[in-house]
Amino acid sequence: MKLLPALEACTPRGNLQSNMSTRAETKAVLRSADAVCFDVDSTVIKEEGIDELAKFCGVGDDVAEMTRNAMGGAVPFKKALTERLALIRPSREQVNKLITDHPPYLTEDIKDLVDRLQQRGVQVFLISGGFKSIVEHVAARINVPLSNVYANKLKFYFNGDYAGFDETQPTAESGGKGQIISLLKEERGFEKDAFIGFGGNIVRQQVKEKAKWFVTSFKEIIEELEN
Amino acid sequence: MKLLPALEACTPRGNLQSNMSTRAETKAVLRSADAVCFDVDSTVIKEEGIDELAKFCGVGDDVAEMTRNAMGGAVPFKKALTERLALIRPSREQVNKLITDHPPYLTEDIKDLVDRLQQRGVQVFLISGGFKSIVEHVAARINVPLSNVYANKLKFYFNGDYAGFDETQPTAESGGKGQIISLLKEERGFEKDAFIGFGGNIVRQQVKEKAKWFVTSFKEIIEELEN
Repeated sequence: MKLLPALEACTPRGNLQSNMSTRAETKAVLRSADAVCFDVDSTVIKEEGIDELAKFCGVGDDVAEMTRNAMGGAVPFKKALTERLALIRPSREQVNKLITDHPPYLTEDIKDLVDRLQQRGVQVFLISGGFKSIVEHVAARINVPLSNVYANKLKFYFNGDYAGFDETQPTAESGGKGQIISLLKEERGFEKDAFIGFGGNIVRQQVKEKAKWFVTSFKEIIEELEN
Repeated sequence: MKLLPALEACTPRGNLQSNMSTRAETKAVLRSADAVCFDVDSTVIKEEGIDELAKFCGVGDDVAEMTRNAMGGAVPFKKALTERLALIRPSREQVNKLITDHPPYLTEDIKDLVDRLQQRGVQVFLISGGFKSIVEHVAARINVPLSNVYANKLKFYFNGDYAGFDETQPTAESGGKGQIISLLKEERGFEKDAFIGFGGNIVRQQVKEKAKWFVTSFKEIIEELEN
């Protein structure tokens, strides 16, 4: 599993060469992009959503360790998610209270960046291995339409008890975010051409190495858009 | 699948011979019973819960026909339930509104019968192929403890959309009610000794033939208890 704190810029099919190899080319894709996909945990928001939920439900330490292990990619994502949720067993009430009383912290300048992208006519998507109930709440705060949110769906019984999650969502799989991006490209005619690494909340070596352009603040991207 | 509108009387293990063969013997079991299990649909309540839910969700005719077919036993219960729910797709809101605005009609004298049984120290159970959210509401109205309710559990997403049902419950299987009764006997030392057929809401030939004692009103059972 790769939980990449990253954003991806998409351009219309065939508009630009794929496999951008330099920082300058990545920036060029961003400026002409029709769509930008944001990861959510440690990117749009400052924390890992599942760790916050676990903390709120009283099993924070155990789950944070499991999340760290899961990041390594040794355990398939769905298995790691199942195991952590089996420990947290969040009720509907708890999720609701978390959102209401402890909403995730937005990363500095994310709202400004999304605003500017949308003003340019760029579609903004949120793609997360976290939970739709939480990510939709984040989306609403930064004006991303709920139809542009891809995330895992928790299930509850009528009395609100935890009842599992939708195991058929691509976001429940290792590599699921890539699958969603492929789907968006196919359905909406985008072509993925650039990957911008984001290390504003936590720097992951893997991301830093993969990204041709690695930023530690959304301000850097806003400035690039103003060029 | 046999959705028997019926009640079952249980006595302590070994207290009475099993395979009661006459109406008089069935009545004797009832008078000495430590536990009575009630089916819910068309027994404790006047209607079939799933048909009412379907009606409320706008697919009443289609589902009522599927329920009638399912009664025949040709389709495995879980399959029949899955198919009907796929058509109804009840939201949390709809289930809630159904219970609040159109609670099931209790069958005449059921409350009185349950009261009298409980006054005699008899434990009363509700075992249903219907939904816990609805059956618990019925249980509360006739003072049956929620821990004595066995039924299927609907699942919902955080936004309230239908998300399936707990497929691991015995009540989701053909013959599941019998399984619950076996479980109760094992765990609590009851021995099932009598089956009383109930035809007060609808008469099913299968039930009438199987039952050594067939009643069309709970008054008949109350009178027997008074002897």
